[in-house]
Amino acid sequence: MRLEVQGVTGIPEVRPGDDVAALVAERTELRDGDVLVVAQKVVSKAEGRLRDLRTVEPSPRALDYATRLVEDDPRVIQLVLDESVRVVRDERVLIVETPHGFVCANAGIDHSNVEADETVVLLPEDPDASAARLRARFRELLGRDVGVIVSDTFGRPWRMGIANVALGVAGVPAVIDHRGRPDDFGRTLSATVIAVADEMAAAAELVMGKTCRVPAVVLRGWTAEAAPGSGRELVRPTELDLFR
Amino acid sequence: MRLEVQGVTGIPEVRPGDDVAALVAERTELRDGDVLVVAQKVVSKAEGRLRDLRTVEPSPRALDYATRLVEDDPRVIQLVLDESVRVVRDERVLIVETPHGFVCANAGIDHSNVEADETVVLLPEDPDASAARLRARFRELLGRDVGVIVSDTFGRPWRMGIANVALGVAGVPAVIDHRGRPDDFGRTLSATVIAVADEMAAAAELVMGKTCRVPAVVLRGWTAEAAPGSGRELVRPTELDLFR
Repeated sequence: MRLEVQGVTGIPEVRPGDDVAALVAERTELRDGDVLVVAQKVVSKAEGRLRDLRTVEPSPRALDYATRLVEDDPRVIQLVLDESVRVVRDERVLIVETPHGFVCANAGIDHSNVEADETVVLLPEDPDASAARLRARFRELLGRDVGVIVSDTFGRPWRMGIANVALGVAGVPAVIDHRGRPDDFGRTLSATVIAVADEMAAAAELVMGKTCRVPAVVLRGWTAEAAPGSGRELVRPTELDLFR
Repeated sequence: MRLEVQGVTGIPEVRPGDDVAALVAERTELRDGDVLVVAQKVVSKAEGRLRDLRTVEPSPRALDYATRLVEDDPRVIQLVLDESVRVVRDERVLIVETPHGFVCANAGIDHSNVEADETVVLLPEDPDASAARLRARFRELLGRDVGVIVSDTFGRPWRMGIANVALGVAGVPAVIDHRGRPDDFGRTLSATVIAVADEMAAAAELVMGKTCRVPAVVLRGWTAEAAPGSGRELVRPTELDLFR
């Protein structure tokens, strides 16, 4: 089995209202079964998930956090709190749970790779819906049946560095459940659910690079049964989290 | 930029003393700059990191755990405790810290894909050394300069499913530090250390499949500055773990 991971280059700076699927489709050939991994940042920009910091009024809590966290702009902290349902940790960096259930630093809010100095990018409101819209648009534009993953780089407990993960998934499985299948010696595999959409996002990041000049990557050759897929399958419910 | 991820097929069941590099080198062509991701299980088997459960005497603590954990073989639990420096969680599954600093379920001990019914596989004693030995052997056999990653699938807090990560690394960076580099708009990227070896391991897993018939995968086309690399760079020191 062989997988190709190919970056889509030449995509211009994305602005609210832009048709990301068209920007990709004009620059690469897609085949049925391809999986397109798109960086959250361009999806969010196209969807207008931008905030002008000059319009944000920080609360006393945000002002207090700004005195003792690495992020020292109280307006950014206010947006992080607005985009969170729970603060998980507040030492140096705010680790929060977002409405989607993601646990990540600063609610995924970022001000790198944004044109305007006073603008930040929020995560898409519903990354699965974003992925599904892109998938539908590729079918419309090209007549191709492609899977779509909307990805972002998240930190991880216990391991250094950030790694790309799948926030939204459409048309490709988020996880593959090997439980009950026999291993090479006929014994049943016990606890083997593979987070394949996260692994595809990770593979894509290797060609994305961090400056976002390659915001979309095509994975070709990954074969699995078709599945609607959902980023929600990758969010571990609290009651199943043996690590918490 | 384009990355190829190609499984090495036809590798027979690996036994203690086997030359894994030779088994791979006979079955694929390698080029300078390729990165070979090898599943921990075949590395451990070749290194004789096997235990016959019939020789294990469970302690009272292991016998007690066996009455209330998913893993109900007290001999396996005893080995998990022997291969741990700390029990992190003990609800349903033992989450432990290994001597390497890895936090994982059951100290990475596994009895799937093992020929003998009463045998389990432990993690390599020093996965960086395992990777370095493989790298040196490829140079010896083929005259090629390849990076090597010894990988295993670990569970993650907050996210469902397991994903492949890098335990040992040689000849390829474990992390790439983008801090201080400019983003697309000339502003400095702040906290962007990418766990590239974990991402390479994840990419490889997509073609490995879980039955271990493809225990080695070649990544071609990934370009980075040469680096000695070390899996230890991916272990987050407790004092830097904002998530704990």
